[in-house]
Amino acid sequence: MIISKDNETIKYLKKLKQKKYRDAENKFLVFGDHLVSEALNNGKVLNIYTSNENKEGILITDNIMKELNFTETPYDILAVCEKVDKDFKSDKILVLEDVQDPDNVGALLRSASAFGFRTVLLSNKCADCYNEKTIRASKGAIFHLDIKRVDVYKKINELKELGYVIYTTDVRGTNKGKLLDNCVLVLGNEGQGVTDQMQGLADYKLTIKTENVESLNVAIAGSILMYEWSKIWE
Amino acid sequence: MIISKDNETIKYLKKLKQKKYRDAENKFLVFGDHLVSEALNNGKVLNIYTSNENKEGILITDNIMKELNFTETPYDILAVCEKVDKDFKSDKILVLEDVQDPDNVGALLRSASAFGFRTVLLSNKCADCYNEKTIRASKGAIFHLDIKRVDVYKKINELKELGYVIYTTDVRGTNKGKLLDNCVLVLGNEGQGVTDQMQGLADYKLTIKTENVESLNVAIAGSILMYEWSKIWE
Repeated sequence: MIISKDNETIKYLKKLKQKKYRDAENKFLVFGDHLVSEALNNGKVLNIYTSNENKEGILITDNIMKELNFTETPYDILAVCEKVDKDFKSDKILVLEDVQDPDNVGALLRSASAFGFRTVLLSNKCADCYNEKTIRASKGAIFHLDIKRVDVYKKINELKELGYVIYTTDVRGTNKGKLLDNCVLVLGNEGQGVTDQMQGLADYKLTIKTENVESLNVAIAGSILMYEWSKIWE
Repeated sequence: MIISKDNETIKYLKKLKQKKYRDAENKFLVFGDHLVSEALNNGKVLNIYTSNENKEGILITDNIMKELNFTETPYDILAVCEKVDKDFKSDKILVLEDVQDPDNVGALLRSASAFGFRTVLLSNKCADCYNEKTIRASKGAIFHLDIKRVDVYKKINELKELGYVIYTTDVRGTNKGKLLDNCVLVLGNEGQGVTDQMQGLADYKLTIKTENVESLNVAIAGSILMYEWSKIWE
C-alpha cells in the first residue's frame, strides 16, 4: 500500500493531471468505476490505483486518492491509460476550433459518438480532450473516437480536396445548407464563435433558429446539428 | 469605497452566495458586464458593486471582488437582484426533476428561452436556478423565463387536468409521441433519469436514437427535444 504523498508514483500521477505531462508521456488518467471499466474494455490501461481494498488495483490511502481527485466527492479508483491512435476514418468529421470549456468539449465528444461523428479534430487552442473533466463529461466516448490535434486550417483544405463539404455555425448565417455525407462540421469558441479565417473555408454556414437569446451553448448547438445529420439516415 | 472584508455589506453579499440566504432574502447575485446589463434591462437591480473605478457602482477593492467571485478570472462588477415573479404562463412548459448540475440547469434555461419553453418548473431536489454558475450558463435567460420551484408531481396532475400533454425522456422508451401544443417536457437527474413516479404520469416517453453511447447529456437531450418542438411552428 502506498501511504506517502512523496512516493515517486504519486508524484508521477499528479504530473499527469497537467496537459504538458500528458502530452510528453502520451498517457492520461480516468476516474471512477464507469470510466475505468470503459478504459479496460475499449482503451489501453497501464495501471489501476484504488483506495478501496475491495477493488482490484494498487492500494493507496484515502488522503492520497482525495488529492489526486478533481471532484468534491472523490472517486475511489483511477486508471493510468495510454493514448491510442485509432485506425479508422469517419465520413463525418467534427472540428472544434478553440472550444475552451472542458465540459463543453466532453459533452461534444459524447454527442459525436452518439450521432456518428467518429473523427474529431481539435485546433491547437482547443481544450485538451484528455483533461479529467473532459473525459468525465465525455462518459467514455473518448475511447470510441478517433481524436487528433492538428492544424485545422491546413487539414480542412486537404479535406476539401478529398471532396468533404465544410459546414460552420454562424449566428449571422442566412443560407441553410443541405446536409451531405462526407461532411466536416466546425464549431467555434464559446465567446467568439467560428473565426473569420474558418468561415472563409466554409461551403455552408448553418444557423439554428432561436428566439429571445442570441445564441445557444456551443455543445448544444453542435449536438443539435449532429442529431440532424443522424436523422438523414433513418 | 469599501475596503474591509468585515464590512456588513460584504458579509451580506457573501451570504447571498448560499441558497438558503437567497431563498430567505428573495435576492441573488449576477456577475460580469453582460449579466449586469441583462439584469438592468430585464430584471430588478437593487445595487451594483464594482472594483473598476471607470464603471458605475459602489466601489470595492480588487481583493474583496475576487473573494466574492466564483471564477478563476474574477469579474469586476456584480449586481444584487431581486427575484421577480413573472406574470405570464407558457403553453410549453419545461420540468426539471432533480437535475443536479448547475451548468446543466443553466444551459437548459438558455435553450428553453431560445425554443419558446417560457415556463420552467423545478422539483424540490433540482439545483437552484439562482446559483451563480447557473445564471452564468443561462446567459441571462433567467430574466426572460417564468421559473418556479414546486411540488412537480402535484403540479403535473393539475396540468393534466388542464389539458396539457406530459412527455418524459426514457432511454428504454419505445413509443415516439407526436409533439403537441400545450405540452410539458420532463427531464430527469443526470445519473438516474426521470423517476418511476414521474414516468407513471407520462402520456408519451421520448427517446433520441443514438449509437455507441447509452444516453446523452441531459442538457443536450432536453435541448434537442425543445428544438424539435420549435420546428413544428416553422
